[in-house]
Amino acid sequence: MKIGFLGLGNLGTPIAENLLQSTQQLYVYNRTAAKAQPLADRGAVICSSVAELATLSDVVFTLVSDDAALQAVTAGEEGIAANLKKGGVHVSLSTILPATATSLAQLHDEHGSHYIACAILGRPEAARAKKLNLLVSGNTDVFETIKPVLEQCGAANIWAFGSEVGAANVAKLCSNFLIVSAMESMAESIHLARQSGIDAEQLMHMLTQTLFASPVYSTYGNSLLKEAFLPAGFTLKLGLKDVNLINEQASTVGVQLPFGKKVQELMNQCVEQGLGEHDWTAIALASR
Amino acid sequence: MKIGFLGLGNLGTPIAENLLQSTQQLYVYNRTAAKAQPLADRGAVICSSVAELATLSDVVFTLVSDDAALQAVTAGEEGIAANLKKGGVHVSLSTILPATATSLAQLHDEHGSHYIACAILGRPEAARAKKLNLLVSGNTDVFETIKPVLEQCGAANIWAFGSEVGAANVAKLCSNFLIVSAMESMAESIHLARQSGIDAEQLMHMLTQTLFASPVYSTYGNSLLKEAFLPAGFTLKLGLKDVNLINEQASTVGVQLPFGKKVQELMNQCVEQGLGEHDWTAIALASR
Repeated sequence: MKIGFLGLGNLGTPIAENLLQSTQQLYVYNRTAAKAQPLADRGAVICSSVAELATLSDVVFTLVSDDAALQAVTAGEEGIAANLKKGGVHVSLSTILPATATSLAQLHDEHGSHYIACAILGRPEAARAKKLNLLVSGNTDVFETIKPVLEQCGAANIWAFGSEVGAANVAKLCSNFLIVSAMESMAESIHLARQSGIDAEQLMHMLTQTLFASPVYSTYGNSLLKEAFLPAGFTLKLGLKDVNLINEQASTVGVQLPFGKKVQELMNQCVEQGLGEHDWTAIALASR
Repeated sequence: MKIGFLGLGNLGTPIAENLLQSTQQLYVYNRTAAKAQPLADRGAVICSSVAELATLSDVVFTLVSDDAALQAVTAGEEGIAANLKKGGVHVSLSTILPATATSLAQLHDEHGSHYIACAILGRPEAARAKKLNLLVSGNTDVFETIKPVLEQCGAANIWAFGSEVGAANVAKLCSNFLIVSAMESMAESIHLARQSGIDAEQLMHMLTQTLFASPVYSTYGNSLLKEAFLPAGFTLKLGLKDVNLINEQASTVGVQLPFGKKVQELMNQCVEQGLGEHDWTAIALASR
């Protein structure tokens, strides 16, 4: 299978590198072409347009910043849907609304190709370590066909969320919401502990050995203790984009999210304070 | 050492049972005397007053509902401080403010006895399984002396938080705050997932195998999925008491807790809706 990859950002690049290790031919496209050069140096072929990428590939991965960017590269005469061969598969890795996934899947369907939602749990270092968790939804036959390619992205686990194409996007939004909520609650606890004169490192050590012995609490707890907000692993601005999607989805389906609204408010404060390019753990600074 | 135990509630009873297994003589006192009878049937001696309990014991454990109740059994002529022998130790297991611990430690000091703060992480079933985590603070020499007795309470781990006597109370408040925040964020995620048409069981299964593989997320996540709010493991009313203490402590030390205020608001709504005796996971019902 010929593989295409569009979107060589912080997370896209290590995933494309993983694919390059196991595929005969990797086609890449990035709006900022310079970002594709290191991959080209290792054998990837740089395409000059989205349409060229789609035409040359059997399976095209996209990882872009938001719903509008994904729409822009997928729809239209020069987009992926119009140029991918019949039976080709568009694997969408971006964090977007389930409704966007549904409409793009419909568009691919009209062109005789397929759209699979594949949300990623994991930061760039997890991609490099091939420890990503992939949440997948869409046509189950298509999923089975491309599963070996998904594994080559750097997946430790692939979680199938069924044939409703937006399901993986919902799961991803819920996951990110739980992460940001855990961050905010840890930030508040650490601040309360310190101002109360107790050793917050010891508190977090105890908690991450017992009740909260999990990767999110260990990793983000550590960042919060160190106030290691730069360089960003995942920027607050991108985190806020996800939190906005979470609240939009909640509003669409009529669910109240008291914590969802609160983290949105706190992250907006952070962006207003000029912290948009800090790591999203900088949400800790909002309530200081 | 002669051990005394005051406060035979849901959690006090299994801890007293554990102590009874390894001590020669256990004295017990409970305001509602009938609750002491099962322990007496197994060899414990029921005392008729707090003063009698304190007079007969070398180490007295207390586990009562709040700061005022602890003050009431500790201070005054009939209280523990006035009746415990010189060098005796009061081990306070209740969830209270650090300032209360400090003032009671001072009172014991004036009477030539000691006060150790020993906060408990764990529900009654963990006490029965001897899997409690104990968070301890206070005079370190005294702590070392009574450590074997603390182990007999049903401790899997004992975490020493130093000589500042209120430290364990702060650690406990922070822990409970993290738990209730995790509960609320899971409740919101589960509701959002279900209303968006995805399988919340599968979502939580994935999360508790990966990013959130921890006891709090597994246990409370499971309760939230099942909406198993009765019978209560820990009542919402008691949880709200702790959340009130968390917010009071934050206010004392000048810390803003956006999530702390929000959970307080949600739990107050639940109590107003008559859910005070439900399990505190019923916080999930506030935003429906």
